[in-house]
Amino acid sequence: MDHIRLAPLQNRNTNNGFKIISFVPIFDLVAIVITAKMGKYMKKRRNIVFVAKSLDGFIADKNGGLDWLQSTPNPDQIDMGYEKFIGGIDAIVMGRNTFETVCSFDIEWPYSKPVFVMSRTLDSLPKKYQNNASLVKGSITEILSELEQKGYTSLYIDGGTTVQSFLKEDLIDEMIITTIPILLGGGIPLFSELPRELEFEHVRSELFLKEIVQDHYRRKKVN
Amino acid sequence: MDHIRLAPLQNRNTNNGFKIISFVPIFDLVAIVITAKMGKYMKKRRNIVFVAKSLDGFIADKNGGLDWLQSTPNPDQIDMGYEKFIGGIDAIVMGRNTFETVCSFDIEWPYSKPVFVMSRTLDSLPKKYQNNASLVKGSITEILSELEQKGYTSLYIDGGTTVQSFLKEDLIDEMIITTIPILLGGGIPLFSELPRELEFEHVRSELFLKEIVQDHYRRKKVN
Repeated sequence: MDHIRLAPLQNRNTNNGFKIISFVPIFDLVAIVITAKMGKYMKKRRNIVFVAKSLDGFIADKNGGLDWLQSTPNPDQIDMGYEKFIGGIDAIVMGRNTFETVCSFDIEWPYSKPVFVMSRTLDSLPKKYQNNASLVKGSITEILSELEQKGYTSLYIDGGTTVQSFLKEDLIDEMIITTIPILLGGGIPLFSELPRELEFEHVRSELFLKEIVQDHYRRKKVN
Repeated sequence: MDHIRLAPLQNRNTNNGFKIISFVPIFDLVAIVITAKMGKYMKKRRNIVFVAKSLDGFIADKNGGLDWLQSTPNPDQIDMGYEKFIGGIDAIVMGRNTFETVCSFDIEWPYSKPVFVMSRTLDSLPKKYQNNASLVKGSITEILSELEQKGYTSLYIDGGTTVQSFLKEDLIDEMIITTIPILLGGGIPLFSELPRELEFEHVRSELFLKEIVQDHYRRKKVN
């Protein structure tokens, strides 16, 4: 929608006759307000979690392992909505832990969207990955603002610690949670302590492979 | 099926001729084996959890409160399957905490089925409740055996600590878990540490009040 906003602003100085001033600024003002509202709507920030957890809320088992994610046979290797989800986001934000876990897999770089790695301790990413990911530093709101300026507003927030930090600041807008029907009895938890309760609304639930429930929740607007 | 088992056993002594012996005992044996198998199936132990939890797995908030259970408007006071569930069980087993919480509510005794209170510390239940509930003592397996002898085999296992103790011994067969779409960020957890992973299978999911997902899981048989 940028052209709507920019066009009237750029043309204004060259048409400065009295008659024009009398109504064009009003039209402009209305156009700017409508555009700003539409722009705000269309560019609305969406920080989204897409994660698999056990019935008891863990994202990795007691040894940090992920084998239990495969406990339900998936002969056709269905992706449970992952590609569709990735297609709808602008970029991925993850913590150092998740980044290093992904790097440790002996696979090609798995992400088709820009990846931003939040880290207080790293000064740079390993050279091997500098084409795949970028280091971002600062508070979460500073990082979100930096990414927004670059046009990344629909963000996949990944990794336990990162999701927990975002939730602590009430900066998660949606959560797509896939529950594997297993009690791990310990491990790395998806959720942690929060300074206050956060209400969500139910968007959708879907059953995959007759065993795995995926629930989509959206943060309830506080008006 | 009791008449099938009892009838041949009672009639046997009166028909003891040679010809009868030659084939009737075999028929009897088959009948007894089939009946025992069917009886075992029909009398199969079912320890079932029916519980509401927050998105982050708490059954009570940081102050032990339950107000968040009402966060979704329920104008018609639908019971989300509770009465149907209660209709299908023989008795309720709860811990002292849950018992005392129920007693603290200023309501009539809410249970229509026999209630058994597990407690190591209580010597007897308060007189006021002796018609409503019975104290049971011993290990979980001793208590289950005692209840089974009394004909109670389909049990509603209630209360965080009690559910956790049953799960530690892999003695929960089904879980009906209702998830309220709120992150409490702390409180009394439904699940706790387990000595080993427990796999479940998905039975059914249902959405209530457009907001609340209820999932029914059954312990996966280990053959």
